[in-house]
Order: sequence, then structure tokens, then C-alpha cells
Amino acid sequence: MIEYADASPEVRAVYDDIMTVRQTDWINNFWKALAHDPPTLRRTWESIKQIMAPGALDAVTKEMIYLAVSASNQCPYCIASHTVAARKAGMTEPMFAELMAVVGMANETNRLASGYRVEIDERFRQ
Amino acid sequence: MIEYADASPEVRAVYDDIMTVRQTDWINNFWKALAHDPPTLRRTWESIKQIMAPGALDAVTKEMIYLAVSASNQCPYCIASHTVAARKAGMTEPMFAELMAVVGMANETNRLASGYRVEIDERFRQ
Amino acid sequence: MIEYADASPEVRAVYDDIMTVRQTDWINNFWKALAHDPPTLRRTWESIKQIMAPGALDAVTKEMIYLAVSASNQCPYCIASHTVAARKAGMTEPMFAELMAVVGMANETNRLASGYRVEIDERFRQ
Amino acid sequence: MIEYADASPEVRAVYDDIMTVRQTDWINNFWKALAHDPPTLRRTWESIKQIMAPGALDAVTKEMIYLAVSASNQCPYCIASHTVAARKAGMTEPMFAELMAVVGMANETNRLASGYRVEIDERFRQ
Amino acid sequence: MIEYADASPEVRAVYDDIMTVRQTDWINNFWKALAHDPPTLRRTWESIKQIMAPGALDAVTKEMIYLAVSASNQCPYCIASHTVAARKAGMTEPMFAELMAVVGMANETNRLASGYRVEIDERFRQ
Amino acid sequence: MIEYADASPEVRAVYDDIMTVRQTDWINNFWKALAHDPPTLRRTWESIKQIMAPGALDAVTKEMIYLAVSASNQCPYCIASHTVAARKAGMTEPMFAELMAVVGMANETNRLASGYRVEIDERFRQ
Repeated sequence: MIEYADASPEVRAVYDDIMTVRQTDWINNFWKALAHDPPTLRRTWESIKQIMAPGALDAVTKEMIYLAVSASNQCPYCIASHTVAARKAGMTEPMFAELMAVVGMANETNRLASGYRVEIDERFRQ
Repeated sequence: MIEYADASPEVRAVYDDIMTVRQTDWINNFWKALAHDPPTLRRTWESIKQIMAPGALDAVTKEMIYLAVSASNQCPYCIASHTVAARKAGMTEPMFAELMAVVGMANETNRLASGYRVEIDERFRQ
Repeated sequence: MIEYADASPEVRAVYDDIMTVRQTDWINNFWKALAHDPPTLRRTWESIKQIMAPGALDAVTKEMIYLAVSASNQCPYCIASHTVAARKAGMTEPMFAELMAVVGMANETNRLASGYRVEIDERFRQ
Repeated sequence: MIEYADASPEVRAVYDDIMTVRQTDWINNFWKALAHDPPTLRRTWESIKQIMAPGALDAVTKEMIYLAVSASNQCPYCIASHTVAARKAGMTEPMFAELMAVVGMANETNRLASGYRVEIDERFRQ
Repeated sequence: MIEYADASPEVRAVYDDIMTVRQTDWINNFWKALAHDPPTLRRTWESIKQIMAPGALDAVTKEMIYLAVSASNQCPYCIASHTVAARKAGMTEPMFAELMAVVGMANETNRLASGYRVEIDERFRQ
Repeated sequence: MIEYADASPEVRAVYDDIMTVRQTDWINNFWKALAHDPPTLRRTWESIKQIMAPGALDAVTKEMIYLAVSASNQCPYCIASHTVAARKAGMTEPMFAELMAVVGMANETNRLASGYRVEIDERFRQ
């Protein structure tokens, strides 16, 4: 993992932008690992910065969707980091509980729909 | 698939409740397939009714999380039905576009975190 | 897809063995597609023949496990073919319904366990 | 995690039922984590109690299917807990070995079927 | 789907760049669907253009890795489009056959490693 | 885990072949776990030996595809072992970085294609 003190100017520029945009004073391990590949570090950060900025969806909704996908994919790092991020953005414990209930249910019914080979209703087609 | 006209009283009772709660006059294929197994039909509907009711999260946020998981799992039936449900609950086109962008990004960074074997930061531990 | 009439002697030998072992007179598309790569055709068939033969688990249990995984993975071809195979091996409609209920539930609780970051109990460690 | 001693009467009632149905004297971490959300705790337990009760499939077959899905999904907690549960229900080491062989094979052929874009045979359609 | 004739100048600029870089005269449906969300269209194309350009890995190796992941994820659109792209970049039928064999095997052993709860060897730790 | 010193002649024969083919003097935990089920140990090794031998694809390309699938599936053991194997076969750090970038991107666009329900272009059909 590449610490700030050991980082090239190119990597430091990304680290600085991350801390500015997120209004924080530290860099989490995900970015320190990606820093081994500066183009991926930059591209991933620029994409996340663009995608996670409030727009038609607010910040907490976006973080909850990110967490929902990470929980569904069972990615331990991503669940840990985005649970913190979602809480920082305003997710309360009851919101987390309801989020997880929906994630669990969606994973159940996705398999019921597939296993029962349910045909898409005409009204649901584009 | 079991149509309303051919359904047992037990199945009809679930169908009736679905139409009442959802304020609609038809039953989509998912339920008609599950109706072959009345206990699963009833349990699944009671669970969804409880989970999807507005609470700490409103209806459109819940439907968007359901859609996010279904898109991440690549379940064609579920994507089709929950896109319609989310729109009915208030999801606009810009909201859908931002939702999909987050789903795509989460799936990308989940694999980057795993492939780079990123250790969970102390601050992210429970 | 490579039909029996057009198959090389090497491929025909596998097709013949499939029909003999399965006591059937036709070859399904999966094998006709793999026949483009005879080593994969042979290796896959030999593995399946060995794995699916009754042993500590009987044939219908093995086919139901195969179907459970295929439904969980949402593979349309595999769900279709292994539903037929499991029925042929003795799976009744109530058995299928209970199988699907377990598959759905396992997919739900897998995500609840991951999302809630549940630590493995000491008693469950190897 | 919510221990029995700290649990509300509502949560204790579920814990008591779990211990009665499973004929055991302890509660594993999964339930202690869900106890933060009593409606999900109750709903998940009621569903599992209903689904896992012997019916057309016996207890060990259901536990093996649960384990097969958990291994296929690569959920560490679920693999650990359901390996223990399946053994308690009667799964021997040879049964476990055959179960894992089927899970591995199904995951392989699911991807071969998808990657080769195998069309579903007419005889396999519903 | 947004056709070239109906596209805004912003979308047309991306379409033009896709056709130039890929030395082709048509736009496939993936981009026509993303064109409903111009920022995602542009960001996705810029990322793919950067990632798929030959570097330490040549074009055909990158396309085969893309196809391997798509086959493993069982995404029908992605399998279809990247099989064509990989062939155009130089993948022969024997290369495709060996690629699919590796994808199948990796999916099998991934689940064996998880199901048997294999501990990571000291020599494999970072 | 079954060590060499404790292994049956049948298991030792596989261990010996693994060490000979891989030109190494140790056995990693994956095989020691599978050794509890000698038929699966033998079948898995024979399959891997056949599949991973250089053919139309060279050894490093095959190891990178194996790693790409393992990273996409988020299998910690498989990522750890195949990162080492791919490096031993010649994968440099820049090659690893480009590999991971493709894996991440494929996982993103797989979900965009599914979520936007993109229809397969006529030119991409078989």
C-alpha cells in the first residue's frame, strides 16, 4: 500500500482531491492499493466522484444503493467501507435494517423467478 | 401459471390482497408461478408486503434498491418488473440513470477491492 | 452444434456413452456445443458420469443439488435441463417446490449474514 | 450482537422458539445480529422454521441444499453454520464430499452452457 | 435506443469516436442504450478506450479476459458482443475452446476452495 | 488437511504428480483439503493438468484468465493462489494492473447491459 508520504506527485494529486471532496484527512486502503496503478487510481476516483455527486438522487440514497450491491455481492471490504460512508451521509440504523431486508428479499425472489422460469409479462416489456 | 379463475380459495385470497395493497387489477406472472406452491406464495407475499411498506425508507427508495440488486444479479424478470414498479413509485429517467451508474460502479470496485486483496481499515471495523 | 451424423468417431464414442449411461436415444444441445472441443467434451462427460453416479447420495438428491445451484446461479439452460433430469430421477412437484423454497431462503440469508458482517461462532469453526 | 440477557421480550420469544425447535441451548451469531431489527429477526426465523421443516424433502436433504447454495455463493458464515447443521441432520463425510463435487461441477457446466450460448432444447421447454 | 440520426451533438461525438477507434461504421446497441444518459455514455466509453488499448497486455488477451468474466457472470449480451470482439482481435476457435475450459474450471475450483474452507497458505499471503 | 506423510498411496501418487508437473517441492492447502475425497482430488488434478497445459493459449494467459475469473467471483483463496501462479508464469505488475482494470470494467458493463436490458444486435448473433 502506498502511503501519502511515499506517493508520486501524480498519486498525491488524487489523494488530495479525495480528501478535499470527502472533507476528510485520511485515505482508506482501497485507494492506497490502487495507487500501484496510477491510471486506474485516477480513472476510478474521477468516475466515483462524478457518479456519487448528488444529482437526481441524493448522497445517502446513492451510498445505500452502493451498499446494497456490495452486500448482495458479499464483498467484505466494500460492505465495511460503504456502511461507514452511508452512515456518514445520513443512513440511520432503521434505514440500514430496511435496506438489508430489501437486499435479502430481492436475492430470494430473483432465484424464485429464475428457478420457476417465469415468463416476462407483456406489460413489463419495454 | 395459475389464473385467478382457476385458483383455489387460498390462492385467490393472496391474489386479492396483492391487488388491494398494490391498487391494481391484475396479477403478474411471478405470483401465478408461485401459486403452484401455496405456502411459498403466501409466505413470499407476506414478506414482500411487510418489507416494501414505507417505513424509515420510502417506497421509491425501496423499489430502487430492489432494482439495483436485480440488475446486479442480472435477473431479466426481476429487472423488468421492478423497473416498472420503481417508475410507478416515482423513479424518473434521471433517477434510473444515476441508479444504474452506481450499480455499475459498485460492481467494478467490488472486484478491484477483492482482486487487490485490500485489507479492511481499522476505522471501518465494527 | 454437431449432430451425431456429422460427428467424428471420437465425438460419436462420447455420444454413444452418454446415451447408454442415461438410457436415452438423443443427445441434448449442451453436448453438441461442447463437441466443437473434443477434449472438453470428453473430460466434462467423464466427470459428470463419475460425479452423478449414485454413491453416498442417490441420483435424485444429486440432481436436485445440481438444480439448486443452477437456479441460484440463474443459468436458464441449466435450470431447464436439470429440472427435467431431476424429475426423471424422481423429483415430484412438492419436492421441487420445497427445493426452490430452500434455494430462495439460502440466497436471502447469505446476504443478511454478509451485510450484517456476522462473525463465525467459535462452535462453527473447523 | 444482542445476547439473551440483554434482549427485549419480543427478541427473547424468538430466541426461545429457536432453541425449542432446534433442541439446543444456545443462539448463534446470525440471530444475535438480526436481533437489531426485530421484524426481520421474526420474519426470517418464521420463514426458516416453515421452509426447513421436513415435508416432501427430509431434513438432511434440505440442509444439504442450503449448504450447496451457500458454497456456490461463497458465503463463509453460511458455509460454516450449515456444514454443522447438515452434519447434525445426518450428513456423513462421504455425503459432504459428493455434495461438494456436484456443486463444483454445476458451477463449471453453468458457465460452459452460458459461454457456448447453448440454445434450450425443445424437449426441455416447459 | 438512440440512433445516430437522432442523437445530440454530444452523443454523436462519442459515436464518432467509437467508430474511429474501432475502425468500424456502426454502433452496437449497448452504446445506443447508454446514450439515454450522456454522462454515463461518455464516461464508460472513455474508460473502455483507455483500458482496452494495448499496453502490457495485447488487444486479444484483453478481449479474452473480458469474455472470460462475461461468461463467468453469464451475461448474454456481453458474451455475444465480446466473443465477436475477441475473434476480430485474433482469437481462434482453439483459443476460445481453451478459454472456456479455464473459465469452467476456475468456477468449479472457486467453489471447492470455499466449500472446503481452505485456509490460505502462508506462501500465498501478500 | 492431509499432509504427505499421512497420505494414502493413492493420494501420494497425486501429490507426486502435482510436484513433478509444477516443478515444485510442496503441496498447497487446496489439494490437502481435497485429499479427504480421493476421487475428487484425482479428477480435479487431472482436469487442471489437462486444461492448464500450454496449447493454443500459453501458460501465463491461462493463469491470468483463471485469476480474472477468481477475482470476479471474489474467492480469497483462489485470488491468492492464482496471483502467485500467474506471476510465476510470467505476469508482471503492469500486466496484473491491466488485468484487474479489465476485470473491473467487465463487471461494470455486464450490469449496465443487463440493467438497460440491451437487445443483442443481429450482427452478434451466432
